[in-house]
Amino acid sequence: MKSKAIFYHAGCPVCVDAEQVLAQSLDQQKFDLEIVHLGEDKHRISEAEEFGVKSVPAIVLGNSPYHINFGASIEDLK
Amino acid sequence: MKSKAIFYHAGCPVCVDAEQVLAQSLDQQKFDLEIVHLGEDKHRISEAEEFGVKSVPAIVLGNSPYHINFGASIEDLK
Repeated sequence: MKSKAIFYHAGCPVCVDAEQVLAQSLDQQKFDLEIVHLGEDKHRISEAEEFGVKSVPAIVLGNSPYHINFGASIEDLK
Repeated sequence: MKSKAIFYHAGCPVCVDAEQVLAQSLDQQKFDLEIVHLGEDKHRISEAEEFGVKSVPAIVLGNSPYHINFGASIEDLK
């Protein structure tokens, strides 16, 4: 069974690069990857925060947040 | 042909977690993953810096550095 992976971003250049290079490098046999644009889907910001996401881009794997470089603070997306 | 992926760490708890969860989630069909402990292989610090690595854990994919959360500054490993 595949695990869920959620990539949160905000369309920033750092985000786009992280999505194209890192998120797309995950083993698609192991993960169902969902891409969430928090600038457009603001109602999912609280969900991201519950996982511990502080900034974007970030990927949640197994309920743990992995912040990848730094694009924008989640506070600035509200 | 596989691309090279280099995961730099320093044995810190944040590093170990990032290695176990994120680095091991990469598609092994696409990448040859090398794990480098910069606390033990200090002679490779300059190589990591040339890729733009500022802190560990970090993974270099296609010559670009992706810092994952924050364990330790590369300056503190010297």
